[in-house]
Amino acid sequence: MQATDILNITRKDNVARITLTRPAARNSLSLEMLARLRGAVDELGHDATTHVIVLAAEGPAFCAGHDLKELTAARAAEDAGREFFDETMQSCAALMQAIVTCPKPVIASVQGIATAAGCQLVASCDLAIASNAAKFATPGVNIGLFCSTPMVALSRNVTRKQAMKMLLTGELIDAAEAERIGLVNDVVPGEQLEEATTALAAQIAAKAPATLKIGKEAFYRQLEMPLAQAYEYTAEVMVMNMLDADAREGIGAFVEKRRPQWRPLDPGEA
Amino acid sequence: MQATDILNITRKDNVARITLTRPAARNSLSLEMLARLRGAVDELGHDATTHVIVLAAEGPAFCAGHDLKELTAARAAEDAGREFFDETMQSCAALMQAIVTCPKPVIASVQGIATAAGCQLVASCDLAIASNAAKFATPGVNIGLFCSTPMVALSRNVTRKQAMKMLLTGELIDAAEAERIGLVNDVVPGEQLEEATTALAAQIAAKAPATLKIGKEAFYRQLEMPLAQAYEYTAEVMVMNMLDADAREGIGAFVEKRRPQWRPLDPGEA
Amino acid sequence: MQATDILNITRKDNVARITLTRPAARNSLSLEMLARLRGAVDELGHDATTHVIVLAAEGPAFCAGHDLKELTAARAAEDAGREFFDETMQSCAALMQAIVTCPKPVIASVQGIATAAGCQLVASCDLAIASNAAKFATPGVNIGLFCSTPMVALSRNVTRKQAMKMLLTGELIDAAEAERIGLVNDVVPGEQLEEATTALAAQIAAKAPATLKIGKEAFYRQLEMPLAQAYEYTAEVMVMNMLDADAREGIGAFVEKRRPQWRPLDPGEA
Repeated sequence: MQATDILNITRKDNVARITLTRPAARNSLSLEMLARLRGAVDELGHDATTHVIVLAAEGPAFCAGHDLKELTAARAAEDAGREFFDETMQSCAALMQAIVTCPKPVIASVQGIATAAGCQLVASCDLAIASNAAKFATPGVNIGLFCSTPMVALSRNVTRKQAMKMLLTGELIDAAEAERIGLVNDVVPGEQLEEATTALAAQIAAKAPATLKIGKEAFYRQLEMPLAQAYEYTAEVMVMNMLDADAREGIGAFVEKRRPQWRPLDPGEA
Repeated sequence: MQATDILNITRKDNVARITLTRPAARNSLSLEMLARLRGAVDELGHDATTHVIVLAAEGPAFCAGHDLKELTAARAAEDAGREFFDETMQSCAALMQAIVTCPKPVIASVQGIATAAGCQLVASCDLAIASNAAKFATPGVNIGLFCSTPMVALSRNVTRKQAMKMLLTGELIDAAEAERIGLVNDVVPGEQLEEATTALAAQIAAKAPATLKIGKEAFYRQLEMPLAQAYEYTAEVMVMNMLDADAREGIGAFVEKRRPQWRPLDPGEA
Repeated sequence: MQATDILNITRKDNVARITLTRPAARNSLSLEMLARLRGAVDELGHDATTHVIVLAAEGPAFCAGHDLKELTAARAAEDAGREFFDETMQSCAALMQAIVTCPKPVIASVQGIATAAGCQLVASCDLAIASNAAKFATPGVNIGLFCSTPMVALSRNVTRKQAMKMLLTGELIDAAEAERIGLVNDVVPGEQLEEATTALAAQIAAKAPATLKIGKEAFYRQLEMPLAQAYEYTAEVMVMNMLDADAREGIGAFVEKRRPQWRPLDPGEA
């Protein structure tokens, strides 16, 4: 992988770190970036040695959303861009859903400005830590292109009026406000962001990977069910989880006051 | 329109302001007031020169909910009021949904006490700014009439336990608490309420009206869908929005660093 | 009932107080405790003189979740515990839903640590007051058993990222944080917990019991409906409520500025 590549992946201690490295373009989600990110999430999602994924970025912007130059260039086509726009929006929606369905927890590490689909990327991650320099907005309304796909993730993170204010005004909110409304979990000084993210990732990576997989999948599935169905489904998940080797080991270790030894994921299971 | 009328509508710079002007009755939602408000929302929703609607009120109360004297008088009917109650509740539910489906953003400007269906009115608006003198409650439980329709809007604005506390105790919460839990977006000193509301309305009215319409409709529709369906729907909305003249103009202006010129809504499109 | 019993029920002034009295086992939810709690909720839910239920506990823990010793012992069975685990998870899910469907408001009074299914118990109650010594966690991930049923209640109380942080890290949050994110309504000094809970319970117990029943049922039902259906349903609930004797008395008393006299619940109606 070259230093000038748009995406960088590093792995250490069961944590994989995906870094957007196209700062000159504010890490915008060109069709190539969408494909590369999607590929990275899918690959790491099925990598048995990766327990947790961190999504980070280089430069002043975390991610500025779609690549407007690329979208504008597509207008020259015979169909005025329709096919290209469709491919872009489908790829983007698929990436966001791939993060949600990825069996590994995904933590956004937000060092700078996250706007439009960049804000959606943060909202789509399971957890997010922000630098106090980070800012967030869904400014599509300012350019005649309402943030309709970003709102799907945003409105599932924050309340209606808070989402509507961001969507209708297009204004930036700062990191403290993002924490207050639930868009990020924690805010730290910029120089501590990497350390804080690494510590959180390491804490979660020390859990049994099969348990994380069971839990993350069940979380998003039960959210879309009415209460009775959610309990019917999760009660069965709990029973299967109890019969799993990790629960036997974990509960045994807890009762015997010793440190548990988790089994690694099988390559086919990851 | 007479000075003694129960409703006043003014228009300025693409912002329409509906004011409840029945302060002696605490702007309560009599059947006439419900019909007048519904008519105003529908009319302004289809008025091409109106981009944003502000909902305000005169007097110490923003709105005290249903008109209890009118409801009590209806008990004298042969059916003990059933038909009148039914008409009132249907009209009220229709008004609240008309605000949600109105293609123009609706901002509540809350100068005083908003209770029961008055609290629901605030919760049903897209955005809300409150005076620090404003208070909110769902006090129906105190008079043997649980706030069952207000809870529909309230419970889609605030968390379950916060909604339940208001509904079960019937107690007033102040404006700061209303902001904390998500019922209003901002709180300002009473003497700055009109200025703050006008500034927010003007900010949003400067966006392309067709874009606001696309976005508001998509927001509430996608909220009721599971994630995969929400993305399928909004991705298509984004493609259609990209092919729209406003996105072409807006993105072009952004790339060329100039001010965009939005097209007005066609009368038939509004 | 013996002093050494695992559950204690007291009644005073239309408020029933269920206390978990198995502090040595951290009030964990053994199969017996689940059955006893379920029985108490069902019985009090149908007791005409009980208007409000308080759920409290003795000792440093409010409730530590499932009884891990009991679950571990069940592994010795021929089916490795499957049937016992299934019975436990079904009983637990049924208890939590019994709290939600109970016609009486249920208030958690949380004096200590509430973890896993103990945290779920708090999340399942309509309201919760916590001592400033209380702490909350969903630590199943630490023992290889993800809190998949607790997450059903938790994720319906707090935002996604807040729920995910608790579920993925297993860490304790303190009472102030629990209030901030919506898991409890109020936090008071430990020595004021009983007084604060009693005051809140008394305030609600003074309302018409039939009105509380109508409202609580409608609240959870409408939450699971799309907006139009929720309004159709609750508008009908409001009309029936208006025709009820309590609304007639309550609205009459309000108009006449006197104290209302609620009718008691019929034994068959409770």
